[in-house]
Amino acid sequence: MREKTTLVVFSSDLDKIIAAFNIAIGSASMDMDVTMFFTFWGLNVLRKKRSVKKHISLLKRLLNFFNRGGVDRLKLSKFNMMGMGTYMMKLLMKKSKMPSVQELITLAKELGVKFVACSTTMEMLGVKSEDLIPEVNTIAGVSTYISNAKQSKINLFI
Amino acid sequence: MREKTTLVVFSSDLDKIIAAFNIAIGSASMDMDVTMFFTFWGLNVLRKKRSVKKHISLLKRLLNFFNRGGVDRLKLSKFNMMGMGTYMMKLLMKKSKMPSVQELITLAKELGVKFVACSTTMEMLGVKSEDLIPEVNTIAGVSTYISNAKQSKINLFI
Amino acid sequence: MREKTTLVVFSSDLDKIIAAFNIAIGSASMDMDVTMFFTFWGLNVLRKKRSVKKHISLLKRLLNFFNRGGVDRLKLSKFNMMGMGTYMMKLLMKKSKMPSVQELITLAKELGVKFVACSTTMEMLGVKSEDLIPEVNTIAGVSTYISNAKQSKINLFI
Repeated sequence: MREKTTLVVFSSDLDKIIAAFNIAIGSASMDMDVTMFFTFWGLNVLRKKRSVKKHISLLKRLLNFFNRGGVDRLKLSKFNMMGMGTYMMKLLMKKSKMPSVQELITLAKELGVKFVACSTTMEMLGVKSEDLIPEVNTIAGVSTYISNAKQSKINLFI
Repeated sequence: MREKTTLVVFSSDLDKIIAAFNIAIGSASMDMDVTMFFTFWGLNVLRKKRSVKKHISLLKRLLNFFNRGGVDRLKLSKFNMMGMGTYMMKLLMKKSKMPSVQELITLAKELGVKFVACSTTMEMLGVKSEDLIPEVNTIAGVSTYISNAKQSKINLFI
Repeated sequence: MREKTTLVVFSSDLDKIIAAFNIAIGSASMDMDVTMFFTFWGLNVLRKKRSVKKHISLLKRLLNFFNRGGVDRLKLSKFNMMGMGTYMMKLLMKKSKMPSVQELITLAKELGVKFVACSTTMEMLGVKSEDLIPEVNTIAGVSTYISNAKQSKINLFI
């Protein structure tokens, strides 16, 4: 059986998302089975930029107004400075020929990394499966994560 | 011997605390031995809302003025917005019939999850054992954590 | 073979750095092989306070203006309050006879903890090997981290 890496992607900070994908892609390149479990804010990475929001409560709509999905909206955990720091970092990554989050997603998928969307988070925020990007493999809860994690050589909360 | 889950709960962010308890309760439900090691800001979860503060230095009192204990005071890591975001999230959790932190604590205890309070943090902040909630099993230092962690299938820093 | 602890130090928050060193030093004291892999903001811990910055782009210089290296510049993740909270915490640590980050670095090195600087972060921020403190053992990328991590009993993302 191949060795496993299982990552809980809790954060939606741009910097942490990049770190998570680097570890996922690195593990997959080294022939490991990789699962990324996106939960809470991290679910934003798997959400379409513009998703249909009908029949959800005012409260969920309000929360989704602040907490919008889509990889283009991810911000740095530090020095965001009204977007300037995040913009500078993205520019720097581009100049350093580092891949964008969108490219990291594509690369991870090519290497067989599995994307799991947390069902509890989806229910709480009113996110439907049609709001998710097609790269998502499954929607699952905490017991799926635990089954995976306890067989894993690498298991991080990011 | 049963498989183990050991969590370092470093943060006091409401969202991370919920994630930590979900993983703890999930592991315990799947018949694992679970220890939650509360350190630094995370210790707030184990502190009584109103604790007796006598004979501690002005400096510790000042720090405790900002960093108050009790599960009702936990805030979101993002979108707190002077408490509005945290309030909305709590309302949303309630509407989604998700348990509150107080209920998560009760449920975790019922499933045999062990709560450890970090002795170094207590000393630094001037927190006494009588300031802690009765659900705490033991007060211990980093060596206890390491002994546990290295035997664990799941071990996260949250 | 001795048991291993491998820590990804991603953050540069003073509180998380202290937690990382406590776990590293605790593990090393219990006869484990410890590697700390400093990446992204965490690289600041390994940077000299004043490092020579020549021939790097305006963009990198701008980012480095905000994100300066050196252990004296680390701030609390919460209650920094324009530096006041961080100052108070440092004072409190001193009064509690807890070691400073500089002392934690020295102690960790004495116990044989290995410091790895992330090569990708260095390239992105324009940090050269002469900008790093002499305590750094090696400069390496994600594959080195993964090789280490998957053999480790304790492996955390901090």
